[in-house]
Amino acid sequence: MSNASSVQALTYDCINPHIKEAKYAVRGELAVRSEKYRAQLLKGDKGDLPFDTVVSANIGNPQQLDQKPITFFRQVASILENPLLLEKEDVLKDALGYKQDVIDRAKTLLKYVKSVGAYSQSHGSPGIRESVAKFIEKRDGYPADAEHVYLSNGASGGVNTLLHVICSKPETGILVPIPQYPLYTATLSVLNARCVPYYLDESHAWGTDMEEIESALKKARSEGTDVKAIVVINPGNPTGASLSEESIKSVLELAQEEKLVVMADEVYQTNVFEGKFISFKKGLRDLQKAEPGKYDNLELASLHSISKGMVGECGHRGGYFELIGFDEKVAAEVYKFISIQLCPPVIGQCMVEMMVNPPQEGDPSYELYKQEYDSIFKGLLERAQALYKAFKEMEGVECQSPAGSMYLFPTIRLPKRAIEAAEKEGRKPDEFYCFRMLDATGVCVVAGSGFGQKEGTLHFRTTFLAPGTEWVGRITKFHEEFMDEFRD
Amino acid sequence: MSNASSVQALTYDCINPHIKEAKYAVRGELAVRSEKYRAQLLKGDKGDLPFDTVVSANIGNPQQLDQKPITFFRQVASILENPLLLEKEDVLKDALGYKQDVIDRAKTLLKYVKSVGAYSQSHGSPGIRESVAKFIEKRDGYPADAEHVYLSNGASGGVNTLLHVICSKPETGILVPIPQYPLYTATLSVLNARCVPYYLDESHAWGTDMEEIESALKKARSEGTDVKAIVVINPGNPTGASLSEESIKSVLELAQEEKLVVMADEVYQTNVFEGKFISFKKGLRDLQKAEPGKYDNLELASLHSISKGMVGECGHRGGYFELIGFDEKVAAEVYKFISIQLCPPVIGQCMVEMMVNPPQEGDPSYELYKQEYDSIFKGLLERAQALYKAFKEMEGVECQSPAGSMYLFPTIRLPKRAIEAAEKEGRKPDEFYCFRMLDATGVCVVAGSGFGQKEGTLHFRTTFLAPGTEWVGRITKFHEEFMDEFRD
Repeated sequence: MSNASSVQALTYDCINPHIKEAKYAVRGELAVRSEKYRAQLLKGDKGDLPFDTVVSANIGNPQQLDQKPITFFRQVASILENPLLLEKEDVLKDALGYKQDVIDRAKTLLKYVKSVGAYSQSHGSPGIRESVAKFIEKRDGYPADAEHVYLSNGASGGVNTLLHVICSKPETGILVPIPQYPLYTATLSVLNARCVPYYLDESHAWGTDMEEIESALKKARSEGTDVKAIVVINPGNPTGASLSEESIKSVLELAQEEKLVVMADEVYQTNVFEGKFISFKKGLRDLQKAEPGKYDNLELASLHSISKGMVGECGHRGGYFELIGFDEKVAAEVYKFISIQLCPPVIGQCMVEMMVNPPQEGDPSYELYKQEYDSIFKGLLERAQALYKAFKEMEGVECQSPAGSMYLFPTIRLPKRAIEAAEKEGRKPDEFYCFRMLDATGVCVVAGSGFGQKEGTLHFRTTFLAPGTEWVGRITKFHEEFMDEFRD
Repeated sequence: MSNASSVQALTYDCINPHIKEAKYAVRGELAVRSEKYRAQLLKGDKGDLPFDTVVSANIGNPQQLDQKPITFFRQVASILENPLLLEKEDVLKDALGYKQDVIDRAKTLLKYVKSVGAYSQSHGSPGIRESVAKFIEKRDGYPADAEHVYLSNGASGGVNTLLHVICSKPETGILVPIPQYPLYTATLSVLNARCVPYYLDESHAWGTDMEEIESALKKARSEGTDVKAIVVINPGNPTGASLSEESIKSVLELAQEEKLVVMADEVYQTNVFEGKFISFKKGLRDLQKAEPGKYDNLELASLHSISKGMVGECGHRGGYFELIGFDEKVAAEVYKFISIQLCPPVIGQCMVEMMVNPPQEGDPSYELYKQEYDSIFKGLLERAQALYKAFKEMEGVECQSPAGSMYLFPTIRLPKRAIEAAEKEGRKPDEFYCFRMLDATGVCVVAGSGFGQKEGTLHFRTTFLAPGTEWVGRITKFHEEFMDEFRD
């Protein structure tokens, strides 16, 4: 057999090419540089840095940016982690201020899962899935079945599962909105399947444009792509859009017509600032009611998560997806696939339960819960509006008003000299701008090219999670100086 | 465009064929049936069932089977979940009995992660990775670098990541021990890569047989398989074996000679009942010391987990892998791949930290920690020996003495009439036996065919986690009756 040579068995050239192709800008080079700055500042070694703090506006990580966890959730979780505390209920109540409903909920969840240190069923604890089904019923006014609810590792775990099952060959295509959260394109790269981009309509509040979707579909099919599903992110990431009932129904009608599975990424369903959230499930059931029989075989997967909204527990990696209209044999393969990784984190499952079944009016913890929830919502809205106002006043910047999710995605028009300077550095112009912003302000955003954007347009995505508005001023000042430096 | 027909977009025929091919018996039909029995008994509806409890000996799920979590871990976790408790340190200490080191550890971990509800770096919190590196250094007597430590979603998440990166084409092959934990074969199926089986030597305590590995490798290469890595599970799952230092070095020498990445699944490193655990990392560093230069490019990935051992916190989905000797550009792709799923559960990361850095002699929590740890270890050993003794006395059953992990994997010789009866039911003989066992006793084990076994041999895997030994008696009685029913 062969002798060893001096290089490794696993060189860059020989690893999985589909992973090399995948791009995930949200945690890319810019984010890595921002972490270096943060570490430098933590060591007290400011050096030449012209800022004192790093503001991670690149990623929806609420609690990293000082969003406080909801007390009810965490009190319950503390008991789940240490059930021996239940032997001292009086201490919990009298000395630590835990309310009776906290203790009761912990007992219920422990009955469901036995121990948060034990594996659950692959798709999650039955009691928790029941609770999710009840939530969906209440939200939509239509029944839901716990057997069709799959708890997951955040919504990302659900997306990974669904795309794995759907993508059967290199010609499989998935309609993905552009701009999009790069989880979709990255996972499709890994799976060696095709992303079929459809552009959202920036001039109409980043809405879906049915003609655009139809033409993207037609083009892809004419090129031999077997388009199997359409992804919709509502409220939008990175766009911050919020879809109307009519838009939702149009997408469903198209999916029915064209035999597409609908993947509805609805993780921002509580982050809605304009209008009201309507789920794809409700849209589908309404259509089914209006025209009995017609939509019976339409397949919809609806995803949700504890990571976003007022809950913001992304570190706990909890989420779920509901499968509607799926073939039972396909659902069995979904189940087998998730079994291989055993089960989602059980404490995250318990957080899902609390998210879908929070304290109700009259419950001892309700008042504090509502106060915390409303205050987080109000803070998000205020910061969104402050950012929006700042963007409107910035030279060459245009921005849609904040409608949903936790992002703004302004258009930036950069001077020709800036674009040339970017080229010299071998960077895309929006990346160049974002690196300059990070180096000047410590504020880390993500370039629009990381999400996709129409040819010739430039954007960046920022969260509006970071506390205060001082950092908005940093961006405004940077932008002025940048424009002064490069103005044609 | 086409009109809708009456079937779904996603039929069984058109989904990902590689997922359909994957097999994962640990959570297969037998496990599903056992869960049905459990649910039935919970409802108080015993019906015709000839048993009162279901014993899930099919899966290493310690806390489902009443293994108590370690108090220190859970006290710290309760504070991590509710940091407001730190405002009442006196209550924690005086009324709840939390020791000072519990409070200190919680503060340290909160400094590392900020909030367990926040995303960490994709490969885990730097402070926790440092702690893992220190543990590895202390365990092996050789340095470890936190930058090469990747926290993961249990060890399963790590295996999934590594196989994704290594498998670059359908011809890629991975040497996998048979019998094996089916995570490996299932993941290789999903990735459409080749499992290159090498049989463990049952007659030598399920050890590795170098000639067997070499011949499997040679055969695979001659058939056009590009064999890139070898998996070793030590201590063994499902075999319960524990490898000698010599065996470990032989595998490493072969890997060096043949340019194979070594994947060392070492999740049972504290479950060793005969001899002493030696890590592949230590084996490699010893070889490198003995012959400087020769092994510099050998790539080793060593995986560990909080799910097993005396910790048994599988529901928290924590683990890590260390990459040794990997090309930096390859490591960067590993990082990007895990970024797409954001980060492992943060409370699970904290559990990893406590596992690798438990209370030390002199610490206030040490005594209780040691007492709990030793008692779990002793319980495992006692039950392992009781099972082993029972198996030795059963007709047609042979079993290796329990050396490591949490499983026994006895050989069963079934009468010809039993094999015929199995055939009639369309089942493999060992599956038939295991279904019969479940139906008669409520004890759920996994048939050897779910792990792979030499042609013509039959086995089953049972954990020795279930409390007490009453259920061992159920197996013995069932086996007698089974043999009486089918004896030739």
